[in-house]
Amino acid sequence: MMGTQLEAAAGGLITAAMKAAARAEGVSAEAVRRQVESGRAVIPCNPAHKNLRPAVVGRAFRTKVNANIGRSPEVSSARGEMRKLLAALEAGADTVMDLSVGAGLGRIRRRIIAGCPVPVGTVPIYEAFCRADGRIERLDSQLILDVIAEQAEEGVDFMTLHAGVLRRMLPLAMRRKLGIVSRGGAIIARWMCRFGRENPLYERWGDVLEICRRHDVTVSLGDGLRPGCQADASDAAQFAELETLGELVRISRRAGVQAMVEGPGHIPFDQIEMNIRREQKICSGAPFYVLGPVVTDVAPGYDHISAAIGATAAAFYGASLLCYVTPSEHLGLPTAEEVRTGVVAFRIAAHAADIALGIPGARQRDDAMAEARMKMDWRAQFRLALDGRMAAGRFRKSGRSIPEGSDHCTMCGRDFCAVRASREMRRRAK
Amino acid sequence: MMGTQLEAAAGGLITAAMKAAARAEGVSAEAVRRQVESGRAVIPCNPAHKNLRPAVVGRAFRTKVNANIGRSPEVSSARGEMRKLLAALEAGADTVMDLSVGAGLGRIRRRIIAGCPVPVGTVPIYEAFCRADGRIERLDSQLILDVIAEQAEEGVDFMTLHAGVLRRMLPLAMRRKLGIVSRGGAIIARWMCRFGRENPLYERWGDVLEICRRHDVTVSLGDGLRPGCQADASDAAQFAELETLGELVRISRRAGVQAMVEGPGHIPFDQIEMNIRREQKICSGAPFYVLGPVVTDVAPGYDHISAAIGATAAAFYGASLLCYVTPSEHLGLPTAEEVRTGVVAFRIAAHAADIALGIPGARQRDDAMAEARMKMDWRAQFRLALDGRMAAGRFRKSGRSIPEGSDHCTMCGRDFCAVRASREMRRRAK
Repeated sequence: MMGTQLEAAAGGLITAAMKAAARAEGVSAEAVRRQVESGRAVIPCNPAHKNLRPAVVGRAFRTKVNANIGRSPEVSSARGEMRKLLAALEAGADTVMDLSVGAGLGRIRRRIIAGCPVPVGTVPIYEAFCRADGRIERLDSQLILDVIAEQAEEGVDFMTLHAGVLRRMLPLAMRRKLGIVSRGGAIIARWMCRFGRENPLYERWGDVLEICRRHDVTVSLGDGLRPGCQADASDAAQFAELETLGELVRISRRAGVQAMVEGPGHIPFDQIEMNIRREQKICSGAPFYVLGPVVTDVAPGYDHISAAIGATAAAFYGASLLCYVTPSEHLGLPTAEEVRTGVVAFRIAAHAADIALGIPGARQRDDAMAEARMKMDWRAQFRLALDGRMAAGRFRKSGRSIPEGSDHCTMCGRDFCAVRASREMRRRAK
Repeated sequence: MMGTQLEAAAGGLITAAMKAAARAEGVSAEAVRRQVESGRAVIPCNPAHKNLRPAVVGRAFRTKVNANIGRSPEVSSARGEMRKLLAALEAGADTVMDLSVGAGLGRIRRRIIAGCPVPVGTVPIYEAFCRADGRIERLDSQLILDVIAEQAEEGVDFMTLHAGVLRRMLPLAMRRKLGIVSRGGAIIARWMCRFGRENPLYERWGDVLEICRRHDVTVSLGDGLRPGCQADASDAAQFAELETLGELVRISRRAGVQAMVEGPGHIPFDQIEMNIRREQKICSGAPFYVLGPVVTDVAPGYDHISAAIGATAAAFYGASLLCYVTPSEHLGLPTAEEVRTGVVAFRIAAHAADIALGIPGARQRDDAMAEARMKMDWRAQFRLALDGRMAAGRFRKSGRSIPEGSDHCTMCGRDFCAVRASREMRRRAK
């Protein structure tokens, strides 16, 4: 046993996972090792997750996209969730979280881990609360630890743990327009209210880390007090929790456990830069894993767009993992098609940030697309598109009236096509 | 005849249009007058456009969204375009441009003007080129002026005029990856190449202004050399044209004609702020009217999302009119449904920027949404949504398994609903 990726990196060792992640990024394994050693990057890869293609999450590398799937108590099934997993992978998700709650969630998770070549994350408090039959009084810290240990043994690569929500912060959250909007955060808050005791994850953080170290589970410090609307953004509750998350990052690293930090949520566009810089400072550069954020609250049905706007800015200013939002956010559980749409929207955000940041090689695909457009090579355009099937479908639908293989599209038509005109002028100029 | 809005403003007059625009913004008419006088805002309102609700475009006011409609030579009809007009208006477009080319474009335009309560814009060179039977050698400056005069008489409120593309700039554009991507810019460029003469719109700008002053047509200085891909962004061709546009803004203002400036197009996210600041400086604060911009070239089928990302940043940094991009951009002419999607995506961008800029009252609707979410008042949520029909549709589709009027949705289910938990904790705390 060589220990966790962090321990290996600190010992100067280059692991197979670092090599694989480096190849995927087109960088040296040593560059990956150094980032992991500093804690500015993590490689979520539980050795028990077989057939995993390791990936590195950190701002020095390509921005990654996470897709949340998982049944709710009222909707979907193992089969439905496997369909969403495939949709997410096909659309290019870099990591997947199984947020299933309700009956059969263990079986769904095991199937997802077995069928998923990218890192899988979970929120163990969900299973613990289900095992407690949804009754707060039956939940205790030992049950939570047992669930964490079992999921770690099954091969979960990273876990959201809401260890930063403390009792003294609850009055701050209760003053808000929208209280607590994190499912896990709300369960912990209810437990603390019920028993008058401190957050069990915080109290037993040493035991949590012991399990995570043993299985090299990356901890993803959950933002149980993330704002749920523009009005609550950047408030005292959010930033009080962030201070605790920074403390927990440092404790985790000292224990040899890889750690990243989750962030909001709902943030006005002008506050995104400040939020990211603050997290990077308080959490000692730990990878920031943001949910969106959405930049307005009035776009239900289109929250993937609102969130892709916020996510692009977040990644540009320093977030390294973007949790997608689907068109059904705030309305219901997504369908497989909505999962696909959400992933593509977020790949746009991630890629736009990578271009803006000058991540080496990021713009190559865009340049190839520009060349394909100049050549009017439609097949190459569909091949280079983030979702070529969708692009080809829209092209064919709109272009039914023009012959297959034409050198223009219906948008401008032949005579008004500026690209045709440019080609002609360039030819004459030569 | 009191002259143009700019002339009235300069003379200290408050017009009916200023009053109406001020009411819509919730500001004083004097505030509108001052902005129009300074040239930092325009009120595109041709007196011949009956039933127009005047609106003011400028960074001191709410960000506006333009929807492009109009047939291409190969697709659509007058009826199809009227359907798109309705879709655009219903989704909340603040201005509409008719970009029709091909047979019957005059008839389509007259129907659009008659049926459109928001400002209507056109690109007169399209009609001139159609009347020249799509043959560059038949196009001349008198034909272009005739078309501008006729369209002005019909009630067009603003016109895109590519007067800034000059002969000396063409070699710069020919060096690009993607040459010229503006339809109007390409026509002018071909004309200049064919005849070896300067841009006819630039040469006869005085005559153009004479017509525009007479009918109070706002000139929208077209960016004929806007970049068509990330690689071409912020290049010598683009910025050479921008200098000319700045010169034309000042000449237009001196002639009493309202002017705004069009901008790209395709810009990496990190270059947006610089582009906007540069335009504001070079063009003496003239309202900046941007097309998107898209922040990656590899998202055909989803360019409304890519462009909404760029548009939010553009508006935040100073653009005041956002030309939408639909999901069919780069692939074909949009359907009415795609027009609707494009407008909603851009209303999200515009609204997100307004919240971020602190435009008075902008966040009220978001705050009301947060309250409706806390109360689990679904009807209020759909009423407050930018597209309530879409939101309600997704909610009902996902929620078929839970009873109508339920206090939760299928996303988390009852026991895991954080908002339910927050309400409960707040109740107990009281």
